[in-house]
Amino acid sequence: MLDVEYTSQFPVGTIKNRGRNQWRYREAIPVLYEENIVSFNEGYTPMVKERISRKDVRLKLEYLFPSGSYKDRGATVMISKAKEQGVQRLVEDSSGNAGSAVAAYCAKAGIKCDIYAPSYASQGKLTQIRLYGANLHEVPGTREDTADAAMKAAENTFYGSHVWNPYFLQGTKTFAFETVEQLNWDIPDAIIMPLGHGGLLLGTFIGLEELFNAGIIDDFPRIIGVQSEACAPLAEAFQKGLDDYAEIEKQDTIAEGVTISNPLRAPQILDAVRRTDGEIITVTENEIRDALKEALKMGFYIEPTSATALAAIKDYAYGTTIVPLTGHGLKATNTLGKIFP
Amino acid sequence: MLDVEYTSQFPVGTIKNRGRNQWRYREAIPVLYEENIVSFNEGYTPMVKERISRKDVRLKLEYLFPSGSYKDRGATVMISKAKEQGVQRLVEDSSGNAGSAVAAYCAKAGIKCDIYAPSYASQGKLTQIRLYGANLHEVPGTREDTADAAMKAAENTFYGSHVWNPYFLQGTKTFAFETVEQLNWDIPDAIIMPLGHGGLLLGTFIGLEELFNAGIIDDFPRIIGVQSEACAPLAEAFQKGLDDYAEIEKQDTIAEGVTISNPLRAPQILDAVRRTDGEIITVTENEIRDALKEALKMGFYIEPTSATALAAIKDYAYGTTIVPLTGHGLKATNTLGKIFP
Repeated sequence: MLDVEYTSQFPVGTIKNRGRNQWRYREAIPVLYEENIVSFNEGYTPMVKERISRKDVRLKLEYLFPSGSYKDRGATVMISKAKEQGVQRLVEDSSGNAGSAVAAYCAKAGIKCDIYAPSYASQGKLTQIRLYGANLHEVPGTREDTADAAMKAAENTFYGSHVWNPYFLQGTKTFAFETVEQLNWDIPDAIIMPLGHGGLLLGTFIGLEELFNAGIIDDFPRIIGVQSEACAPLAEAFQKGLDDYAEIEKQDTIAEGVTISNPLRAPQILDAVRRTDGEIITVTENEIRDALKEALKMGFYIEPTSATALAAIKDYAYGTTIVPLTGHGLKATNTLGKIFP
Repeated sequence: MLDVEYTSQFPVGTIKNRGRNQWRYREAIPVLYEENIVSFNEGYTPMVKERISRKDVRLKLEYLFPSGSYKDRGATVMISKAKEQGVQRLVEDSSGNAGSAVAAYCAKAGIKCDIYAPSYASQGKLTQIRLYGANLHEVPGTREDTADAAMKAAENTFYGSHVWNPYFLQGTKTFAFETVEQLNWDIPDAIIMPLGHGGLLLGTFIGLEELFNAGIIDDFPRIIGVQSEACAPLAEAFQKGLDDYAEIEKQDTIAEGVTISNPLRAPQILDAVRRTDGEIITVTENEIRDALKEALKMGFYIEPTSATALAAIKDYAYGTTIVPLTGHGLKATNTLGKIFP
């Protein structure tokens, strides 16, 4: 597993006058030349104050990215770097949002891409990947079969994996930059987020570390990772004090996006959460469903996965708490219609 | 038909330091008290340079609003004003995006709403309206039958119509403010936009007029309204020099959002376009389909309706041309899958 080490700079006065997008933190993103940037001027997502479960929180609308999820945050940097590295074709595997994001940025970059997805994935997500012009490979069997097929294809092709490729996290780290800037360059008390492969959580931690090292912030917020009780290899590991994920039997959950039984970056995730004095916790299906219903009726049209973090607000929000809403409800219209007939 | 007259101010230095959303133009929005603002901190949508049909254009990503279309621009102001007016329940009719937008902001405001929609409307759009907590009334028959049902219901209830209620245009006018600010307070040469009821076009014109009257700009860009050949009551009126829309037989088109045979604000629309030395033109179904396909393959996941304006780029873009992309492709997954099987 590779990581990127980079010394980021934050010229606050200059940043303030730049465009409203995540590339405003230009000196913190390890892409060398402007001409390689593949971007829709995405990011700098809205932060909205709300009262939920009798707690004051700030929701960050990460579903307002071009492909409909926060994965664009990682894809814009990963694909820019791929372009800079001269990549002309790449492989990715995903059951949903990451595949759409990578396909979108490959389309923008003119990089050919092969997306492997399980054939059980929702038709809407597969349609989106295909219409971006990606070569879509539907793989029968489990999510792991899809990963195996992609890994095999990647033997001879660049593997633009949102889990393995460390530049993806160099994009998601901008979530921390934006959060801190939107709080006038101060930290919140806690950040509560859904946790699957840890793409957003790890990115956030990396971003906070860089802000800390640059002297912009002088402490860390608590990071609370939330998993569905139905698939909680990291919550179990956290409770047991393990250094890698626990082996679990995954059950069905409406929080598809975090149904990851083998989070490959588990050691990093556990370390990051512990270093912020955070926690990894679980919520039940009923709690997710109730939180989802409440959010929809407040006007936040989100994917079920995003509601895992909302379900944890009642017990874990305090002071200034940030909760990202990670995926658009329009990605899950059929599922939402079934959950709430 | 009512209009709002309002003398807008643009304290440029102050605006610059405000949040990145359409409410930064606070002195230009006729809502009196902050406490009435119903907002997701929406707007200030990205502007992206692209080369399309061998022309340089700037696309404005109006699909990145919370409910998935530019209609939120109008809804945030209209519903804020409704709240200020003490409205506790309202009626709206829509075959799609406006209904979702109004339902979303009513949810946020805690205003009860009844949305009337034709029963033939897409299931996804109806699901979205319903899940926001609106009372959804599916009306059999034509779009006009739906309008009649809503009009009848509105006899005793506030009519929060995106066509009749003039505060809707007080929201969409911010499209002009953002466009001009994103060009460093200068005007483009042309703005090419889809045209149905004229919600975005009229808002844009009103916004430009206010900027002109405030001395921020000293000329107008040409406004090019684009209709599908299958339903072009305004293009026909423009060509014939009429002052109201032409009676036409509407045909099927993939550009559902602009399939309006009786644009109620036609006289205003025709006048606005003429005053900017603009035009109202038509594009064919094939041109819309080709433009849509090209956009998707460039990474812009948009509704078919948005592609009407893209189809006009080849003949109407020059100098600095702005093209709004008005609705998210995720709203039309099934349709897109059918158009491009």
